[in-house]
Amino acid sequence: MESNQKHNWKTILHEIIYEADTPAGKRFDVLLLIFILLSILLVMLESVASIDKEYHQLLYIGEWIVTILFSIEYILRIVSVKKPVKYIFSFFGIIDFLSTIPMYLAFLFGGAQALVTLRALRLLRVFRILKLARYLGASNQLKDSIIASRVKILVFLFAVMVSSIIFGTIMYLVEGEVNGFDNIPKSVYWCIVTLTTVGFGDIAPQTPLGQFITTFIMILGYGIIAVPTGIVSAEYTKSSLKADEANAKTVTPDIEDLHMNSQCCINCLDTKHQDGAEYCHKCGHKMHHDS
Amino acid sequence: MESNQKHNWKTILHEIIYEADTPAGKRFDVLLLIFILLSILLVMLESVASIDKEYHQLLYIGEWIVTILFSIEYILRIVSVKKPVKYIFSFFGIIDFLSTIPMYLAFLFGGAQALVTLRALRLLRVFRILKLARYLGASNQLKDSIIASRVKILVFLFAVMVSSIIFGTIMYLVEGEVNGFDNIPKSVYWCIVTLTTVGFGDIAPQTPLGQFITTFIMILGYGIIAVPTGIVSAEYTKSSLKADEANAKTVTPDIEDLHMNSQCCINCLDTKHQDGAEYCHKCGHKMHHDS
Amino acid sequence: MESNQKHNWKTILHEIIYEADTPAGKRFDVLLLIFILLSILLVMLESVASIDKEYHQLLYIGEWIVTILFSIEYILRIVSVKKPVKYIFSFFGIIDFLSTIPMYLAFLFGGAQALVTLRALRLLRVFRILKLARYLGASNQLKDSIIASRVKILVFLFAVMVSSIIFGTIMYLVEGEVNGFDNIPKSVYWCIVTLTTVGFGDIAPQTPLGQFITTFIMILGYGIIAVPTGIVSAEYTKSSLKADEANAKTVTPDIEDLHMNSQCCINCLDTKHQDGAEYCHKCGHKMHHDS
Amino acid sequence: MESNQKHNWKTILHEIIYEADTPAGKRFDVLLLIFILLSILLVMLESVASIDKEYHQLLYIGEWIVTILFSIEYILRIVSVKKPVKYIFSFFGIIDFLSTIPMYLAFLFGGAQALVTLRALRLLRVFRILKLARYLGASNQLKDSIIASRVKILVFLFAVMVSSIIFGTIMYLVEGEVNGFDNIPKSVYWCIVTLTTVGFGDIAPQTPLGQFITTFIMILGYGIIAVPTGIVSAEYTKSSLKADEANAKTVTPDIEDLHMNSQCCINCLDTKHQDGAEYCHKCGHKMHHDS
Repeated sequence: MESNQKHNWKTILHEIIYEADTPAGKRFDVLLLIFILLSILLVMLESVASIDKEYHQLLYIGEWIVTILFSIEYILRIVSVKKPVKYIFSFFGIIDFLSTIPMYLAFLFGGAQALVTLRALRLLRVFRILKLARYLGASNQLKDSIIASRVKILVFLFAVMVSSIIFGTIMYLVEGEVNGFDNIPKSVYWCIVTLTTVGFGDIAPQTPLGQFITTFIMILGYGIIAVPTGIVSAEYTKSSLKADEANAKTVTPDIEDLHMNSQCCINCLDTKHQDGAEYCHKCGHKMHHDS
Repeated sequence: MESNQKHNWKTILHEIIYEADTPAGKRFDVLLLIFILLSILLVMLESVASIDKEYHQLLYIGEWIVTILFSIEYILRIVSVKKPVKYIFSFFGIIDFLSTIPMYLAFLFGGAQALVTLRALRLLRVFRILKLARYLGASNQLKDSIIASRVKILVFLFAVMVSSIIFGTIMYLVEGEVNGFDNIPKSVYWCIVTLTTVGFGDIAPQTPLGQFITTFIMILGYGIIAVPTGIVSAEYTKSSLKADEANAKTVTPDIEDLHMNSQCCINCLDTKHQDGAEYCHKCGHKMHHDS
Repeated sequence: MESNQKHNWKTILHEIIYEADTPAGKRFDVLLLIFILLSILLVMLESVASIDKEYHQLLYIGEWIVTILFSIEYILRIVSVKKPVKYIFSFFGIIDFLSTIPMYLAFLFGGAQALVTLRALRLLRVFRILKLARYLGASNQLKDSIIASRVKILVFLFAVMVSSIIFGTIMYLVEGEVNGFDNIPKSVYWCIVTLTTVGFGDIAPQTPLGQFITTFIMILGYGIIAVPTGIVSAEYTKSSLKADEANAKTVTPDIEDLHMNSQCCINCLDTKHQDGAEYCHKCGHKMHHDS
Repeated sequence: MESNQKHNWKTILHEIIYEADTPAGKRFDVLLLIFILLSILLVMLESVASIDKEYHQLLYIGEWIVTILFSIEYILRIVSVKKPVKYIFSFFGIIDFLSTIPMYLAFLFGGAQALVTLRALRLLRVFRILKLARYLGASNQLKDSIIASRVKILVFLFAVMVSSIIFGTIMYLVEGEVNGFDNIPKSVYWCIVTLTTVGFGDIAPQTPLGQFITTFIMILGYGIIAVPTGIVSAEYTKSSLKADEANAKTVTPDIEDLHMNSQCCINCLDTKHQDGAEYCHKCGHKMHHDS
């Protein structure tokens, strides 16, 4: 009976922390969201010299509060999940761990370590923002269209790299060190700045020939910008049209005959489950019913 | 009979101010357009020191003329509308009010208030440009495709925010205060400047490592630019194709059997009205007949 | 008989100058192309102080040769066309006239006029490049998709204008004259520079609040860039798919029954002509047969 | 028999060097990839003064190792191919040759030649990166959609050129030499920098009129950016939809009756081959079987 109670306690905790369909679960999610954003704000404000000077003590206390709360969250997540090891080494497990550890390490080795390492360690806290990824939902059309066009995006990146290296070398030769093109890596950097139409202007061609070549680079960049946009746009139009077709099919009555429903397994994202299925047919994960 | 006359007077005024299908209504619209643009021009010219010095008196008189005209317009709009309270608290009601108030407040509290507040108050007049929104028409395909893709745009903004904060922190660590990356907020600002390919160049990476990381940020930004374009493009293609299909259906003869027409209620934008309908079937607003 | 000969002479000239399907006509076109590009090159080189200093005499002679050749071309175009007045006041007629006149005017009034006027007059020659528009062909899909989406482009420009004026005023208030935002027009100019992601960086926000607002402007600009791209992309996809369908239909045999062909009147661009039509059914212009 | 053995030796070499479906061939490809990237890294590092100073000897030795290996590769490619002359004058033949020659020439004429020529010669090595193009595969959808829209891209480039020259001349006249618009070519260069939204900011308009005209240029550029994106996007959507249709057809059973398969000739890229074809029906090249 104690085991059963314990199990119940675990199940309730799991529902609160991992799911969002109970009032307590929703409240937990909102609270977590607020603390994540607050924590990022603290990191940011701490880096502003004038603010840090005046409110250092306050920021330090706030930081410890956030760290302790995230630590509790991390422990509860480990306790309430069935396979703690799987969670710990999952993407979110690592992020949750990294969200808590910096302050402890800074506290332990604060005096012994060099200032730069300490600073880097403390800034690690900014990765807490990745905790927000939980709110995005596991699957989205956008990700699919990016994955569908990954080969083309690689080809595009290759084109950018090759163009930048060749034009960077030419510009290094034409402009030279006197005009800020100190070496090929810097020249390639400038070339990417120009190709992507960012154009900082800290380095800019000064010779007529250099400006002439730049004209080509810019128009090439203008043309290249069309490529990833075109790819994502086309993939997205396709997947969007398909989604519409799929929706159109769903409303037809004969879909019922297929004994399928739109239930989505929270674990493996498989959607083809039998009606009334209690466990996912693919990964065995307990299905999650809204009603 | 007096009441009837009064009613008539109100109806005529309403027709002139709110509608554009009578010659008087059209003339009113054109005049209003001219005064709005003139008013914006006045605000702009006033801010140019050399012009303000020479023509201060002229600009001041012009400003008062515009303010009085807009005040008259505001009063007439309240008078001629059936539900004045609804108008007053509508988007355009607030804009119309804000268009008139700055000069009166500046006149009343001009001496007592600080210069900065006064200046801010006077610059409020620039929001008069929103009066132009009336000429855009209530509904357009563009707005629909933006609304249809709002979730994806939020996901995109989230991606921009997360990338900026993480890369901003890294750049703050790598470049540091000596190279203009004073603190994380400024570093994040620089990161957004780079991701959006704006690239002011007031802050630019100086260290080789910083420039190397910048290369990644720029190419990421180049890739990210594809996403909103792809989304709007896809949504727009879809809605555009649907509109074409709808148009194609309209010309088929059996559409007449459905006893529908293309009349659009000016109040709620509903378009499915019975032939000869006098009032909108949805909001009860009096229908507006062209003939 | 003399009249007939004269008519023949005119027809041949017309064929050489206005059409490109005879060897002489082709040679004329290529020659004209070379002289246009040469002429633009002359204008450009003349503006480079170091080159002008050394080769002034050569550039001057070259300029006169080009001017005289263009004058001859202009006269021949007037002579060989049936309705000279229509040609003279057409787009190309005005461009052709403007291509010849600057040198004559500079010669006549060179001494009497001020240097700036003279310089502006001479630079007018750069509009000769518009002569190249002849080689583009009268009709193209691109122009159609731009025209088809002109209303949406206007709405987009309106959005850019309104955003720029409002954000420009806010930035003027926040940053002020000390940070380069001297007045509202300059602030609006900066705002358009930022919205369009050009980002010169000659003016850049210095205050934290200004930088925070700039973040919004940039992301807005990033979003706005999606709109015209999406519009043109969608219109272009549509017109491109339609063109494909039209081509697909052309190969079907029943198209022959319609007694239509793909002949395009060179004058009014109407394409629905009867087989063997000698004159355009719309404008009466003599049809142009390839065979 | 010796001839047969020699033939075998050649065939094996050909398989290793030109194909990637044997373990040896794969290993060769990976090794080559590493050496290409290493070689580019050497060229880049050599240009960094501080690195070159310290590790000059090491870089020099590394460079010679890479050069000798590429020379061996070049000779083996000539030896193992059936038509060496065709290979030598092919794109990759020239690239492979240019990858080896700089070091030999620098060694031979190093003392006699001027430093600039020598430097240019050595930087030629950067073109080795084009060797990477081999890994891209011969045919891709991307290239097709760019080729399909080449006329439109030319029209677009023409529009950019004409706009730049006209606006460049106007800006030269308005801003003049005092504000950095030294001559028309530089002004045109600035105009392209602005139109492509790069915006270095090394030259920026200073006069109100110049800034006003710049506003037009930027919004024009913003509109123009839509055109190539729209074109590539539309072409890509079309070709992508067609590819999907083609794939859909492949799975239908009657495709088997056509006695076709998806084998692609490595030489001419033709894909319509009879089942079990040993040689390409178009160019006679030996077919390449995976099994």
